[in-house]
Amino acid sequence: MTRDLWLIGIGTGSPAHVTLEGMAALHDAAVVLLPLKGEDKEALADLRRAILDASGTKATVIPFDYPVRDESLPYATRVDAWHDEIARRWQAAMDGAPEGPVALLVWGDPSLYDSTLRIAGRLLPAPRIRVVPGITSIQALTAAHAIPLNTVNGPVTVTTGRRLRDHGWPEGAETLVVMLDGECSFRALAPDGVTIWWGAYLGSPDQILDHGPLAEAGPRIEATRAEARARHGWIMDTYLLRRG
Amino acid sequence: MTRDLWLIGIGTGSPAHVTLEGMAALHDAAVVLLPLKGEDKEALADLRRAILDASGTKATVIPFDYPVRDESLPYATRVDAWHDEIARRWQAAMDGAPEGPVALLVWGDPSLYDSTLRIAGRLLPAPRIRVVPGITSIQALTAAHAIPLNTVNGPVTVTTGRRLRDHGWPEGAETLVVMLDGECSFRALAPDGVTIWWGAYLGSPDQILDHGPLAEAGPRIEATRAEARARHGWIMDTYLLRRG
Ligand SMILES: C[S@@+](CC[C@H](N)C(=O)[O-])C[C@H]1O[C@@H](n2cnc3c(N)ncnc32)[C@H](O)[C@@H]1O
Ligand SMILES: C[S@@+](CC[C@H](N)C(=O)[O-])C[C@H]1O[C@@H](n2cnc3c(N)ncnc32)[C@H](O)[C@@H]1O
Repeated sequence: MTRDLWLIGIGTGSPAHVTLEGMAALHDAAVVLLPLKGEDKEALADLRRAILDASGTKATVIPFDYPVRDESLPYATRVDAWHDEIARRWQAAMDGAPEGPVALLVWGDPSLYDSTLRIAGRLLPAPRIRVVPGITSIQALTAAHAIPLNTVNGPVTVTTGRRLRDHGWPEGAETLVVMLDGECSFRALAPDGVTIWWGAYLGSPDQILDHGPLAEAGPRIEATRAEARARHGWIMDTYLLRRG
Repeated sequence: MTRDLWLIGIGTGSPAHVTLEGMAALHDAAVVLLPLKGEDKEALADLRRAILDASGTKATVIPFDYPVRDESLPYATRVDAWHDEIARRWQAAMDGAPEGPVALLVWGDPSLYDSTLRIAGRLLPAPRIRVVPGITSIQALTAAHAIPLNTVNGPVTVTTGRRLRDHGWPEGAETLVVMLDGECSFRALAPDGVTIWWGAYLGSPDQILDHGPLAEAGPRIEATRAEARARHGWIMDTYLLRRG
């Protein structure tokens, strides 16, 4: 029997980010796999619960624990082993679950810097996968600042904090969106002529925004970020850099 | 009196792409400005109507005509003059409208290759602008194909057909998303080692998908695109290219 597995993008912090399609899918699912803790923080568990409640779903909710990463392994092997183990746990949860479509709530959009699709690709027998798109943290950032993502017909590069540190400003880029950055990697750039639009906890009631010329706004954002992170115990932030 | 102007992303073809926040905003708006025809095709007018109906809004709907671009002007001047004229029409429509928030439905997400924010920036007195994020055609594409946008922690470049033709494959890019491409600009690339995922009319019942190694899928997509465009009278398509 081939299972239907629905990966549902839920946006980045507001239950109102969920689309009508996402709500309908949750409503129609027979089973929801709910991570108890994992990559995202426990503070976000309440959000998932609120979304499920709002959908009016009668699905069987099956919580599962995330495995711990084996820090003794080299990075690539470690991530692989970890994805294998998550897939095993999904499989185990699904094997005992009622028939019908199984749903997973995915932060933001399932396509963007997220491993859910790669983990789902490990399941055997292979499920029929449906992806419901969600609002990404990029859209949440530009909406909060009410700015365009691109210059007129200009290109946009989305990258990670690590790549920005290792490779600097990408050749030919006008607009850079930086995600997965634990260390304010914009510090590695020559700030002249660069403007930053920064956002943390986007979409949620705790949302913080700042923007300005990188030379001035950069140090301010570093301080705000450190303070907010200490206060909340965690932080998720994204920023856009524009040159010229 | 400062007006509230709400730019509401409606996704790319399915009324179910609209978020709960988008629906609530339409519901709460006092006025909706509805373009009669313009950049997007009249076939899409029905979709806007369906979304408005679903929101249950009691807003006063004010249709307005899009101006025609003056093709005698050079490109930049022409676009500028055209945006000025659209802003004048919005202003005229809003001046006679009931008090309260004014809403505009924006295709996809208002931040991505869209001029609404730039036009809104011309209004005087400046309105208070709120942007409600929407599903972009990028998310619609990756969801339809059930693929990740990025390689593991890899960068993504979003660009236009024209830039791809003029500048070729951007230095250092792994994943390219190409939009605003009227002429299958992937033909300008050396196809070896490149995979394409293509989608037209994404999110709508007319959605068409294809993918494969660029050398084989490219010519097939060209033919499909020409045929679909002739049949519908218009086409909107987006594709993702991955190297390696
Ligand atoms: C593992 S990725 C997941 C991205 C998600 N799939 C999306 O579509 O936005 C996590 C990164 O997304 C960004 N992010 C996610 N949620 C965010 C939020 N609410 N505010 C700011 N940044 C956020 C941060 O850059 C974070 O490091
Ligand atoms: C003026 S831009 C608007 C983009 C929109 N704001 C968004 O968020 O997707 C129009 C381009 O978006 C892409 N596009 C928009 N809707 C699409 C659809 N339903 N299917 C495929 N491509 C689409 C095409 O590349 C098209 O040339």
